[in-house]
Amino acid sequence: MKLGSLMDGTRDGSLVIVSQDLSRVMAVPDIASTLQSALEIWSAVEPELRRHADTLENGTAWDAFPYDEKKMASPLPRAYQWADGSAYLSHMKLVRKARGAEMPSSFETDPLLYQGGSDGFLAPHDAIILGDPDWGLDFEAEIAVITDDVPMGTSPARARSHIKLIMLCNDISLRNVLRLELQKGFGFYQSKPASSFSPVCVTPDTLGEYWDGGRVSLPLISTFNDREFGHPNAGCDLYFDFPALIAHAAKTRSLGAGTIIGSGTVSNEDHRTVGSSCLAEQRMIETIAKGTPETNFMMPGDRIRIEMLDAQGVSIFGAIDQTVVTA
Amino acid sequence: MKLGSLMDGTRDGSLVIVSQDLSRVMAVPDIASTLQSALEIWSAVEPELRRHADTLENGTAWDAFPYDEKKMASPLPRAYQWADGSAYLSHMKLVRKARGAEMPSSFETDPLLYQGGSDGFLAPHDAIILGDPDWGLDFEAEIAVITDDVPMGTSPARARSHIKLIMLCNDISLRNVLRLELQKGFGFYQSKPASSFSPVCVTPDTLGEYWDGGRVSLPLISTFNDREFGHPNAGCDLYFDFPALIAHAAKTRSLGAGTIIGSGTVSNEDHRTVGSSCLAEQRMIETIAKGTPETNFMMPGDRIRIEMLDAQGVSIFGAIDQTVVTA
Repeated sequence: MKLGSLMDGTRDGSLVIVSQDLSRVMAVPDIASTLQSALEIWSAVEPELRRHADTLENGTAWDAFPYDEKKMASPLPRAYQWADGSAYLSHMKLVRKARGAEMPSSFETDPLLYQGGSDGFLAPHDAIILGDPDWGLDFEAEIAVITDDVPMGTSPARARSHIKLIMLCNDISLRNVLRLELQKGFGFYQSKPASSFSPVCVTPDTLGEYWDGGRVSLPLISTFNDREFGHPNAGCDLYFDFPALIAHAAKTRSLGAGTIIGSGTVSNEDHRTVGSSCLAEQRMIETIAKGTPETNFMMPGDRIRIEMLDAQGVSIFGAIDQTVVTA
Repeated sequence: MKLGSLMDGTRDGSLVIVSQDLSRVMAVPDIASTLQSALEIWSAVEPELRRHADTLENGTAWDAFPYDEKKMASPLPRAYQWADGSAYLSHMKLVRKARGAEMPSSFETDPLLYQGGSDGFLAPHDAIILGDPDWGLDFEAEIAVITDDVPMGTSPARARSHIKLIMLCNDISLRNVLRLELQKGFGFYQSKPASSFSPVCVTPDTLGEYWDGGRVSLPLISTFNDREFGHPNAGCDLYFDFPALIAHAAKTRSLGAGTIIGSGTVSNEDHRTVGSSCLAEQRMIETIAKGTPETNFMMPGDRIRIEMLDAQGVSIFGAIDQTVVTA
């Protein structure tokens, strides 16, 4: 089942079911008006949503209307929690090298996770407003999951069943702000403006064999200014999978329904072949090879498109497609 | 005007107006059912709320009922954003000394602010569930404000008008988790379980001369196991006031209505006379004086009460009053 939120002038949008082929949508106000409200009573509404999704697939939904990616908000246009990991170690090694930071001694046993801002996400086709070109704007293509209520102390094994929806993320970063901010020791704040998510999120079963309960094993394609920038496989080289990240998040507190957990930038060890999911990695690869980076950070007019295709080449989540504009 | 949220079995509680003397409350479902929904259209609902508050004060509110602090949730039982500063430098100096960390070089020009978890706050009289006594549980008594929508790039001068409500906070910290977590460089996550806020939040005018547009100039009283632990004045030694913190938060992104911004632990340079607002400070003071801390972190059975009184000795926000229990 595929779900999304239609922009309707409200802060949370309207929950819609999206057809598997991303051609039609239907609103379900009698079941739940927003995705957040559905997640709060997920076990009660999921069967009902699936029944309606069936009518959308078999063509008997009389009130379906065409899917328009430009009218989609992020599946949760705002959320009560967005926590993002850094679970691909090859990304972590490259970006830390880039800013002259050591790998934490516990990186193989203790996941990295930061608390992100969640009071308003960009829509997947929203412009990225850049206040200052010197901030060093970068995209970061990631996988993210949405949970229901997760009790404190949940184990990785139990965390699996709390993953209700899966989507893509552009975790926008301001690299030059970030370097200075991390030196202050309180983590990210100004360096992480609003993220965006794919137009559509999907239930785990939708991914079939490409979801093993903890990771999505398909290439994540980043296209920068109409040229493919990277297609690392999100299932490869993921050191801590989603159940591990959720268990880490829930160690000292419970997580409220509608919590979004991100993987961190998807990255494969074999980046020479598959490319990268952010500019910072590419810049570090260039620096190692040639002594200096050749790729610039994003500037007004630059465009990033993030998408994932199934084995038949069909888009699973729709595309994040954003262009940078000046403030 | 004083507002709060009554626990009613829902995740957001019911918005109530509270009388100035904290004796009576009235629900206002025809105006707004939750505080969050009121904040989203604040300029439209505030006059209406004030009209009802007048009827509560002059005794003509036929549907008022008794105020019961134990039935109050945190004013926002969950929020889309909770960002907490560390704006009292004497606190910052002491706790950094305690964990052997340097002051950041920019501490006098660049506010510290971390993104906190906001998916579920404890009620002001909720027990604090401690998973492991070795985590080093500490209370932190703070002032917090709630904003409406703040545009990106808002100046400190303009930020003042975005402060709609003021309250107290217990920013619960796990000190022994925190020390290790900060070494990883991504800020706080596991070390900051759910915070709690005072039963009542107030509009700035309610504070009269004790609110100068940026700070509350009254002692914040922390009572630990029925003995006064500290009463530093929240208006003294605050290096970055709330407008400065909000402007910092809004530098690279807008802030959604219902954003909570905290001051960090209230602390005065003269801590020998006024005491402290957290155990970590007291432990450091002891370590400096005697070589080793004598005060333990909180254990099951320990109780913390946080309150602020006006010049007549009347509680302004009601009390945060929490006891530690084992998981």
